[in-house]
Order: sequence, then C-alpha cells, then structure tokens
Amino acid sequence: MTNHIANQQNGGTPALRDVRIDSPFWSRYIHLVKNTVIPYQYEAIHDRIPDAEKSFAIQNFRIAAGLEEGEFQGMVFQDSDVAKWLEAVGYSLQAIPDPELSRLADEVIDLVAAAQQPDGYLNTYFTIKEPDKRWTNLAECHELYCAGHMIEAAVAYFDATGKRKLLDVMCKFADYMDTVFGKGADQLRGYDGHQEIELALIKLYKSTGNDRYLQLSKFFIDERGQSPHYLTEEWERRGRKTFFPEMKDFGEDYAQAHMPVRQQQHATGHAVRAVYMYAAMADLAAETGDASLYEACRRLWNSLASKRMYITGAIGSQAFGERFSYDYDLPNDLAYAETCASIGLIFFAERMLRLEPNSQYADVLERALYNTVLAGMSLDGTKFFYVNPLEVVPEACNHHNKHHVKAARQGWFGCACCPPNVARLISSLGKYVYAVRENTAYVHLYIGGEANIMLGDQPVRLVQETGFPNDSSGVIKVYPGAEAVFALGLRQPDWCPDMPIKINGEPVLTEGCSVNGYIIIERLWKDGDMIEFELEMPIIRMKANPLVRETIGMTALQRGPFVYCLEEEDNGNLLHELVLPRESVLKAVYQSDLLGGITVIQATAERTTMDGWNGKLYKQAEVETHDKELVTFIPYYAWANRSSGEMAVWVREH
Amino acid sequence: MTNHIANQQNGGTPALRDVRIDSPFWSRYIHLVKNTVIPYQYEAIHDRIPDAEKSFAIQNFRIAAGLEEGEFQGMVFQDSDVAKWLEAVGYSLQAIPDPELSRLADEVIDLVAAAQQPDGYLNTYFTIKEPDKRWTNLAECHELYCAGHMIEAAVAYFDATGKRKLLDVMCKFADYMDTVFGKGADQLRGYDGHQEIELALIKLYKSTGNDRYLQLSKFFIDERGQSPHYLTEEWERRGRKTFFPEMKDFGEDYAQAHMPVRQQQHATGHAVRAVYMYAAMADLAAETGDASLYEACRRLWNSLASKRMYITGAIGSQAFGERFSYDYDLPNDLAYAETCASIGLIFFAERMLRLEPNSQYADVLERALYNTVLAGMSLDGTKFFYVNPLEVVPEACNHHNKHHVKAARQGWFGCACCPPNVARLISSLGKYVYAVRENTAYVHLYIGGEANIMLGDQPVRLVQETGFPNDSSGVIKVYPGAEAVFALGLRQPDWCPDMPIKINGEPVLTEGCSVNGYIIIERLWKDGDMIEFELEMPIIRMKANPLVRETIGMTALQRGPFVYCLEEEDNGNLLHELVLPRESVLKAVYQSDLLGGITVIQATAERTTMDGWNGKLYKQAEVETHDKELVTFIPYYAWANRSSGEMAVWVREH
Repeated sequence: MTNHIANQQNGGTPALRDVRIDSPFWSRYIHLVKNTVIPYQYEAIHDRIPDAEKSFAIQNFRIAAGLEEGEFQGMVFQDSDVAKWLEAVGYSLQAIPDPELSRLADEVIDLVAAAQQPDGYLNTYFTIKEPDKRWTNLAECHELYCAGHMIEAAVAYFDATGKRKLLDVMCKFADYMDTVFGKGADQLRGYDGHQEIELALIKLYKSTGNDRYLQLSKFFIDERGQSPHYLTEEWERRGRKTFFPEMKDFGEDYAQAHMPVRQQQHATGHAVRAVYMYAAMADLAAETGDASLYEACRRLWNSLASKRMYITGAIGSQAFGERFSYDYDLPNDLAYAETCASIGLIFFAERMLRLEPNSQYADVLERALYNTVLAGMSLDGTKFFYVNPLEVVPEACNHHNKHHVKAARQGWFGCACCPPNVARLISSLGKYVYAVRENTAYVHLYIGGEANIMLGDQPVRLVQETGFPNDSSGVIKVYPGAEAVFALGLRQPDWCPDMPIKINGEPVLTEGCSVNGYIIIERLWKDGDMIEFELEMPIIRMKANPLVRETIGMTALQRGPFVYCLEEEDNGNLLHELVLPRESVLKAVYQSDLLGGITVIQATAERTTMDGWNGKLYKQAEVETHDKELVTFIPYYAWANRSSGEMAVWVREH
Repeated sequence: MTNHIANQQNGGTPALRDVRIDSPFWSRYIHLVKNTVIPYQYEAIHDRIPDAEKSFAIQNFRIAAGLEEGEFQGMVFQDSDVAKWLEAVGYSLQAIPDPELSRLADEVIDLVAAAQQPDGYLNTYFTIKEPDKRWTNLAECHELYCAGHMIEAAVAYFDATGKRKLLDVMCKFADYMDTVFGKGADQLRGYDGHQEIELALIKLYKSTGNDRYLQLSKFFIDERGQSPHYLTEEWERRGRKTFFPEMKDFGEDYAQAHMPVRQQQHATGHAVRAVYMYAAMADLAAETGDASLYEACRRLWNSLASKRMYITGAIGSQAFGERFSYDYDLPNDLAYAETCASIGLIFFAERMLRLEPNSQYADVLERALYNTVLAGMSLDGTKFFYVNPLEVVPEACNHHNKHHVKAARQGWFGCACCPPNVARLISSLGKYVYAVRENTAYVHLYIGGEANIMLGDQPVRLVQETGFPNDSSGVIKVYPGAEAVFALGLRQPDWCPDMPIKINGEPVLTEGCSVNGYIIIERLWKDGDMIEFELEMPIIRMKANPLVRETIGMTALQRGPFVYCLEEEDNGNLLHELVLPRESVLKAVYQSDLLGGITVIQATAERTTMDGWNGKLYKQAEVETHDKELVTFIPYYAWANRSSGEMAVWVREH
C-alpha cells in the first residue's frame, strides 16, 4: 500500500487504484462501462460490429506492423481509438480486476509495439501511407495527438498492472519526439493542431520521473502562438495543401495558436482543444511554479466558466469549428456542447483544484459530470450524444444548419471520439473524488467508496458511505491507523444552502470554518471517527445572467447537482408554449421505476391556448388564455432514453 | 387613350401607363429609382463602377454578338441583369418619359438583338462557352429564366415606347423554344430549375395575342414534377455533373418539382422560385379557367400566408436553399427572408386579386411592400438587403451560420438579384393600385395619383389624393365623362378598424356593404363625384400564432401598413433585455426630420438590470429588478439607415 500512495506526498490526487467507488449511482455506470462499453469498443476497433461502419483501427496497426497487407483506412487520427480503449481498460482494471480483459489488452499492446518504427516513431497513417511526410502537417494530422492518447493509455495500463511494455514503447517514442522538436538548428519549433500531447507528457513525466518529458510539454506550450506562426509556415511549406478544406476558414484561434498562451484572454477556438491545453497549462504551472501560466489558467477559467458555459457544464456553443463563440452567446438549440469538451473541462477543473482548492472548480466539474457527460451516454451504455443541446425540436434539426443536433443518441460510429472519452472518464472517476494538499484531505465529490491517501507521512483511509446523489446524507469514516492531527476539507456545493455536519454524533459549528468553499475540520483523528453530513438539496429556480440573450425571461430548475429538463414524453410537444409561474410550487418526487430511478420535479405550469386564433398567423393582441397543466421535469442526464421528441432545459417564467 | 386601356375589358389591372402616381411617399421612391438606381445599374452592367466587382453582363452580350473577343464571365444567369435593367427602364419611362434613357435602352436592345442566334436562341453563356450544350442543364443554368426576364423587359419596353424590336427578338426566341419543348418525339419535356419563363410567356401572350405562348407556359407548368422526373433524368444524362455542388442536397422540392403542381400542398422549396411559379399558375388559372390550378393556388397561398410568412411579409425562413422550412418555423435571427421573395409574393398576390377580389391578398401585398421590399433598399437608393432579418445582433452574424444576415445593407454587387428587382417593382407600382372586374373598379392600395380605367365600355378617370401612409385621410374623385352606373370597391385594410366614408360630403353607411374586405359603393357616378375616406391607424400590438416558437410571449407593433422595430441607435444595445408591459401607453409621434420623415412609436419599457449579478453566469432566481426606459420604435422599412447595430421587431411583453 505504502509505495502505491507514495507519490501523493507533494499534494495532488490519490492514484486511481487507491480509490474504490461503492455508490449505487456510480457503480452501475462503472460496471456499464466495463461490461458494455469497453467490450463493444473492442469489437468495434476490430471491425466486428455487424452493420456498423468499419473502424480499421486495429487493421491499420496490423498493416503497419507488417502482419498483413493493405492500405491505411479511416480518419488520420484513427490510432487514438485504440489508445482510448487501452486507457479505459487501464482505469477499469484498477477498479475491477479482470485477467481476460488484461490478456486482450496485452495482445493489443503487442500489436502497437510491433507497429513502432525502429527510431521510436509510432503512427499507422504515416507509416503506411506517407512515410516520408512525418511531421509535415501538424495542423491537421494529429500525430502528436495520437501519441498523447497512447501515452495516457500506457500510464493508465502501467498503473493498473505494473506492466511496462506500452510505457516503454511510448517513452521510446517520446525520446524520439524530443530529438525532433526543440529549438536546435535541425529541430522543429512546432506543436500539434490538436492539443493532447502536452498533458500526456506530464503524466509520462510523473510516471517515470524523466524531466525530458516535462520540458518537452513545456516546449509545446511555450511555442504555441509564437511568431512567426508555425502552422501557417508549415502550410506554406506544404504548398498550401489541406486535408480538411473547411480548416482554412477557422482562423488561428481555432487551435488556440493566435497568440502565446500566456497572453490569451478568452476561452476561444475549438472547445476540446482549448480545455486539453488549459489542463496541460495548469499541470505545468503546478509542476514548475510558473506564475504567468497560472495567471493565464485563472483568466481562461474565468472566461470560460463565467461567460461561455452552459448551465449543464457544456462548452463550445457553436457548431462551425466546434468552438467557443463569444461572451454570453449560449444558444440552446444551436449548441454544439460536445461531450468531449465537458470531459476536457473536467480535466481542467481537476488540475485547477490541485493548484488551488477552491470549490468553484469542483462545482463546475460536478456540473459537467452530472449533466453533460452523463447525458452523453444512454442509460444502457449503447448510444451516445456528441452534441448536447439544451433545447431540441426534432423537426427543427433538419433545418437551419442544426443538422449537428440530434434528438436521439447515435450508435458508436456515429461519433467515434465521445464514447471512448466517456468510457475513460467514468472508469477513472475515482481520481476526481479526493485531493490532498499539505496536511488537508479534500473531499471534492460526494461519492460512496473508500480511499487510501497520504497526509504527509501519514497514510489515512477514508470510507465514504452515501447514496448521493439520490440520497442527501452520508458519512465519512476516518482511519488514520495511529491517532494524528490533520484536516479534512468538505466541499459545500454551490447548490447546497446548508450542510450540517456531526462528528461522532455531535453537531459541529461550521460557521467560519469555510475556506474557499470547503469546510475545513482540523483535529486529532483516530480510527473510526465518523463525520455525518447532510447536503440540503432544495429545488432551485436558476437564472442566467441577463446578458445571455437566449435565456432572458426564462428559468431552469436544478436540484443537487442535477439540472432538469422538460421532455415531450412527459409533457407533450410544443414545450415553448409552457410558462412556469414564479409562484408555482415545485415538488420533488422520487420515482424508482422511471429511467433507472430518478427524482422528478412536478409543477403546475401554464400553456398558451389556441383560443381565438382560428388558423390566423398574426392578429391583434387580446387577453391571452392559458390552461393549467401539470408538468414533469426530469434530470437532464436522463433525457432521450425513451421516445424521441422535444426537450427543453429553460422554460419561460412570469 | 381608348386604345391604351382597351385590354382591361376582360377585367384585370389597368396598364402601367394608365396609372400615374403622385404621392409624397411613393413619388420619392419612383424618382429615386429613376435617378439613382437605374443609372447606377446601367453603369454596373457596363463595368464602370470604380472598386466594384465587375458584372460582365454587357461585355458578354458584346462577345456573343461578335463585337469583341473574349470569354463569358460572371454567373451563368448574368444576362438577366441586363433584362431587369431594361424592364425597369420600361416601367420608369411609362411614369417619367426620358428620351436620353430611351436612347440608352435602344442601344442595349440593339446589342441584345445582335447576340441572338439565327434560330432565335439567345443566351450569352451557352453561345460563347458551350454552344453544343444548350438545354442540357435546365436545373441549374437558367436559360429559360433569363429568357423570361428578357421577355418581361420586352413587354415593358414595348408598352412604354411602342417599339417592337426587343419584343420581336423575344417572340422569335419563344417561337424557337416552342419547337424545342413539347410532347413531340424530338422535343424536350423539361422545364427550368428556376421558374420565371412561365409568367413571362403569359405576359408575351397578352401583349401579342399569340396563343402559342400561353400554351407553352401551360406546358411548363403541367410538366413540372411529373414522373419520370425530368431534372433527375437530365442530371443522369449529364453524367451527374453539377454546377453548384450544394444543389445535390436541396431535394426535388427545392425547385417545386417534387410532384405535379396541382397536387402540391405546402409552400415549399426556394422561396423566389415558388412565388414566381404560383404567380404563373394564378395567371394561367385566370386565362384558362383551370379550376384545379386555381384550387392549388388558393391552397399554396394559404400555406404561405397563414403558416410560413413573417409579419413583415417576408418569406423563406431558411438560408440553406433560400427556402421555406416548415409550418410556423419563423426564426427572427436566422431568417433568410429575401427581398426578391417578397417581390415575388407581391406578383402572386396581384394575380390572386385578379382571380378573386379579396382583401386578404391585398393585405399581404401591402405588408410585403411597405415592410420587406422597402427595407430591401436604403433610403438613398444606394445600398440593398438581400436578407431581411427580424432581429439582428451584429456580433452574432459572424457566428452560427448567420453569415447571410447582415446588419448593414451592401452595395449593388454584394447581391446582384435584389436591387434590380426592387427597381422594377417600384417603377411598376402603378400596376398594383387598382383593378377592374366586371363593373367594379377596385382600389387595392391607397396611393395618391390618377388612373384611367375601363369599366365595360365606360372609360373612367379616378383621381386619388392622399398623403397616405403618412396621412390617414384622402379623397378619390371620379370622372366617368358621361354619367354612369358602376361600383367602386375600397379595400378596408386589415390594420384599419374603421374606415368612415363620405360621398360629396355626405357620410355613407358602409355597414353591410363590405364584400371580401372591400366596401362596395355602387351608384350613378358623374364627373367630380368625390369620395372622402379616413383610414384609422391605431397602434396595434400584434401577436404571432402560439405555434410560432420564436415569438411566443412577444409582441410586435404595427401602425397602418408599417411593422415597427427597435434599433440600437435609439434604444442602446442588448435589446433582448427590454420588456414592453401590456399596460404601457404607446404614442405615435411624427418626426419630419428623422429618416425622411417617419412616425415613431414611443413607449415606456422595462429593462432588466444587472443588480446582484456581480459577474456570475448562473444563480438562484431572486426578485428581478427593472429600470424604466423610454423606448422608440421606428418603421421596419427605415432600419439600418443610420449606425449599424442591434435591431428587433419582436419584443417581450408581460
């Protein structure tokens, strides 16, 4: 145990294998990923799903390894699907050991290793198709992006199994990269169009202790956006050829390369690229103490979280470029709001929490997790949303360039990037629950389970027992082995007006104990000490800032971490006709038989009637008539699991 | 005079030369078109506008005529710009004679004639570039469309000047067409992708009395949408080649060729094509007495006017395909709402009025004219809107595929089809004011001026004196020469709750005299009889049908024919924050010095304050605070003539 948790000593989060999740709500998801999503993805990358578009991902590796003949097929970044599968397996094995799954992964790793070139290079597209064109199109070809995902897989699999093979393969690749990229005369001062390598290299550094990887990550971050502009020069060198013609309209900020990262003021460009980069920047700031990078992270966080984020924790409001648009521009129906972007936002939030325990980060992390990320996958784990709108009218999705918005989740190959990202996030959920900083253990999320953490030299076992989010209360039992003085920091969520606490049955006065949103309890702890907590979960009528045009005069309901929505299944269509009067009583009702067990919110709304219209399109205003109507809101994450129909998060109020 | 007006005997509208407009409001526009728009367009088609994109339209005719060497340049339908200029000149000369303009037009006509091929064919694209490919791409190449515009020009110019040259050229072309198209073994059973020839041929028939043209128009209408599908077969014959790659995604209904026209249920597809076709269908129904065609016209009118039209009389709510989308889908910000489409709607409405004097058609005609069509041109006649949104936030136009929406009008060559269309409509406005049916003279529009009409064998001069729309009253003086019994039908507009009438100073009881929205006054008329009318113009709070999602809970103001809007210039930005309480007093104030003299509407609105937000993006609802704010609405047609900023027609109310 001790060596497992030794690397927590400088603060940070406990390793995934040191956290066990035992939560009615979350354990189901973790098993769903293990039993449904990971096996499905395995079959998918092996092209064994009947009637599905082929992946070619494993086949490309077999061809690159010389095991079969053929051409590269699939997207230029197809390798990353294999990497994400391996990474999810690595996390899953840490939660639920499975020798057969491990054997399958070893086989895949052998194949990946066999596809590596003698100099360490690993990318099946260039190896098979354009071996002399390596590193000539960083803007579009995702070589470093794929490498980054395989590095994350290598670290996760090593952590799970102690097996070094993939880790060694990726160290060799990273060592080779380090010769290719740099400020030397024969080196490239480039960086990938799609960030990912940056955060992966820091994981590799932490796993191996090899400072080269940290420095290479820093190099990529530092070079980004410098003048002369590398990606533009590269494009000129290629004879202005592009893979994706629409890229030419995206602008330099699409890949956050419009200016050096430390100068960037707004969360901009492709949302997934942005948050992957911000996560790496926060990592680097933590590792190197770089104050200007830390300041940039705070600034970009603030831009994102206070001006460019949906109430569901979704980001990237514009489909064209899958990107941030501008401050307070958050259209509900045109939203892009990619599942992967909210996952990246969670990565960023978790890094910020390591830099600075402040509940604003955990609040957003939780908001993204319980709403957009969960909505990204059907309750049975077989279908996925790439785009997570806050309002859907199915007929409208065929019009006005809303084709990206779907009223029903798609099978795996409708969207090949989000499903494995959901799989790896849920499998690694344990990494987001606790953090340690100096002599304080922080509880960021209320999720039942057990964690073994190090507080200085003191190993401490924390056992959290709670039915949250379906239940509002819980206990945390503390087992320091020997008695010891240290602090526990319990997050008071932004949706929780009051959070009474007892220790060993005695109420604790928490007033004045709150630091940056955490209730800090410092005392002499002994084995079996028990903290009881109660998270008040009133139904909250939420408003968006009046600068948000699309939600003015509207309200959204939230209860606990869940944002709610209206679905046609419960409320009929034409949801826009509904008004929720301010005085309506809102009632939370748990329904065990609905959508796997959810708490719905019931209220009496008003629906505009068609009285007096008689087929007219416009007429003079008269006194409007309304019918009273009992409406039912369900948690947003559970939408689109029944019939396909209208959905709305925001509802008019008066 | 008598021969001029002889062709009114079977009902219809008086010829343009028989109507003179003398209206403070409209005469300015007619002179603006004559003195600014037509000369500018003449320079434009001759490529003499400094710093503007070249037209090449005249140059193409010169090359086709063998007067110079060179390649065809410009759009495949570039010829139609010359046609529309000639047509506008033809109308303008009927209102305001101008020998110099006539001389310029004669020169252009000589050039057009010189470009005609020996067999009668006339199209510079195919003559210069693909002489062996005539009629192989009706779907996209607009040969018949260009021919139709030139026919309209020929008829207008003949009506204005009595000169037959262009008319003869176009008869020769039409005669040739009639050999190419038909049900014979060697003939094509095709029709143009963009309707226009159909209505033009009926004009040619009426001008020449040659039934072949009527029958050819009927052929095109009858063949459209039949199986096998001509445009698809043609595409196959071409080896599936397309000029405009996006056409493949448009579907057969884009060109209203998805089913035979008599079966069509909904106004669908490209909006301009649709209304040009509906106008021809109504023409044909009138000429041939075809009841099924008439029924289809009524059905399509109803679809359009009661489910798919903006309050401004704009149609075609979707940019992709410049088309109708689906019932009640009328987004304010994404609107396409092309100026040309509202002009085509006026063509359709005018034909329906000839079939059936019913004020619903004139109400829509007037709505489109005073709002979208006028908004299509700047007050100084130099800049034009192609797209006429009902809500603009300039920053938003750079995002979410709203690039088609502009906050400022563009110069001529930003949009080459709408400006000449506005020019020809305004120049021919006289055609829309009156109509004759049996022994009734109908007054559709209240526009000052004079008309010479035939009621049976009775020539009657009507003199309308009114400052409408700036003034609400007026007189109509009747001069039948000899005393005669006939009826006058005065339209009671849909925005006019009461319309008191006096004859020769004596109030007339009009109750029970209204037939289909027209107050019918039948009596023995003698020279100098005078009808005084008063059009009440209260400010009306309008509502859209609750099925329209985008305007639920909102109101738009209308006064007389004018729909109003809020502009940033008067009201600051963030217009979405404004609410117009139902009890707000609305005050009409004429401002002679503003925007050429307009009546503004002033009211006290409420603006959501930023109290309590402190930079947050979401928070629990509290009691909202509002500031009272005096707001000013201006007529929609006058927007975007000052600074470029936000604009909104619909405003929230409570």
